[in-house]
Amino acid sequence: MRDFSQDHSALALNTATLGHNVEGQGAGWSPERTIDACAERGYGGIVFWRREIGSRAVEIGERARAAGLAVPGLCRTPFLVGPLAPKPETAMFDDLHASIDMAADLGAASLTICVGGVVEGTHSISESLKRVTEIVAKAAPRADMAGVKLALEPLHPVYGGNRSCLVTVRDAVDMVEAIDHPAIAVAIDVYHVWWDLSLAAELRRLGGERIAGFHLCDWLADTSDVLLDRGMMGDGVADLKGLRRAVEDAGYAGLCEVEVFSAGNWWKRDPAEVLDVCVERFRTLC
Amino acid sequence: MRDFSQDHSALALNTATLGHNVEGQGAGWSPERTIDACAERGYGGIVFWRREIGSRAVEIGERARAAGLAVPGLCRTPFLVGPLAPKPETAMFDDLHASIDMAADLGAASLTICVGGVVEGTHSISESLKRVTEIVAKAAPRADMAGVKLALEPLHPVYGGNRSCLVTVRDAVDMVEAIDHPAIAVAIDVYHVWWDLSLAAELRRLGGERIAGFHLCDWLADTSDVLLDRGMMGDGVADLKGLRRAVEDAGYAGLCEVEVFSAGNWWKRDPAEVLDVCVERFRTLC
Repeated sequence: MRDFSQDHSALALNTATLGHNVEGQGAGWSPERTIDACAERGYGGIVFWRREIGSRAVEIGERARAAGLAVPGLCRTPFLVGPLAPKPETAMFDDLHASIDMAADLGAASLTICVGGVVEGTHSISESLKRVTEIVAKAAPRADMAGVKLALEPLHPVYGGNRSCLVTVRDAVDMVEAIDHPAIAVAIDVYHVWWDLSLAAELRRLGGERIAGFHLCDWLADTSDVLLDRGMMGDGVADLKGLRRAVEDAGYAGLCEVEVFSAGNWWKRDPAEVLDVCVERFRTLC
Repeated sequence: MRDFSQDHSALALNTATLGHNVEGQGAGWSPERTIDACAERGYGGIVFWRREIGSRAVEIGERARAAGLAVPGLCRTPFLVGPLAPKPETAMFDDLHASIDMAADLGAASLTICVGGVVEGTHSISESLKRVTEIVAKAAPRADMAGVKLALEPLHPVYGGNRSCLVTVRDAVDMVEAIDHPAIAVAIDVYHVWWDLSLAAELRRLGGERIAGFHLCDWLADTSDVLLDRGMMGDGVADLKGLRRAVEDAGYAGLCEVEVFSAGNWWKRDPAEVLDVCVERFRTLC
């Protein structure tokens, strides 16, 4: 297992940690300002949200790399199925393709997929996953051509109804195996999987080459909101080192991306302070 | 699989469906009035919460049986571990024993255990489960003497931090096997397990004799509160018949207990209407 206590070059920022994933939240720093603040502090990478990128994908990607930051991912595709997916399905595919193109222009190694909730009328996780599998398989060649990995992110089961019928690493591995395409991988997020004692075994089944990302935060014991009240590493109950051991034992050696959605706490603080705290917690607790 | 379309004698009411689990919620019917209303409608059983029973366990149990209702369970033990467990641990054991004694006096077949969240300071689901295993093993002989099954209820992973470090059926089956005592069983609740595609396989591993209850409700796609916004059967996204098939295929042939925590909707309605709707939904959708 890698030792980060003296070296945080494996640390990446997901800009959601500064509230940049939601309009009107956070300090609203520009991508350039955020890139510079991360580079100054020795971060190794940065992951943006599409709303920050607009039409400047090539420019921002080049700016990040010029500052010494890798761009391991982009957040994210539209929901593919379920109540929050764009309708009709052609509109979903248009937006899915636009997100792949943006990731390519940005030079992002991967594009996160939150697959969307149970397909309306099915009352079935498994039927919904079948439809997701078809959609992702259809998008795989385009992603491959663009040099972008599609990172299926299993979300916490609390989102099963509306945001993700993919709620376990087990189901994500099954889906990757069913699609069997080199452009398809899985992203592992502490918030979504911290409770799952089968994680290490499932990740061994997956293999490190098909792990496209590892996201850090913490689960607050008395969380007040399951969308926007994530904890900073160390403030919750997750076994952070144990979870990292599981991804590394499976062969993952990539960046560790801090992604703390926190409308009531961290998003209200000075982003410079937040970035400093992330470094300190990463070195000491992750 | 049993056919309930013309016969709802397998339907039981958990009085939480009328808000009776929370002080000040619901219409506040007495146990007697609730028993009579269920009996009139042909329910087969009733499950109370300790706060309704007070010192009248023997009396209420006899009243229910005289009205033709079985008493499959009682809700519930204190949290055994974690931030919400009584402190010090001797106080938790005192309350645990009191709950076993009440279940015995009531003539309840089982007593539900919500095990409590991650043990403070451990940052570890597995360490916390070890402590729960020790506590439940210690209580098993007392439950056995009292003729009460202790029903470990895996809760939804959203409760992992504070209410239940036991969040999967898999972990519950492992715990039952580790304790290996005839008084220890598992309760399966649609709300907590609807998302888990490994359910049927895990329940086969458990076996029907170690399933102490099957609880019905639904998961609302756009749930507004993960504690008190459960759906009535049919209003959500769970595969109700598929879930029942999983418990019945494992050998379960007991009552199906409606348990809808719904502060903003069903608890505000006339309990008579709620009881009628439960019957209709049970016959047509479950």
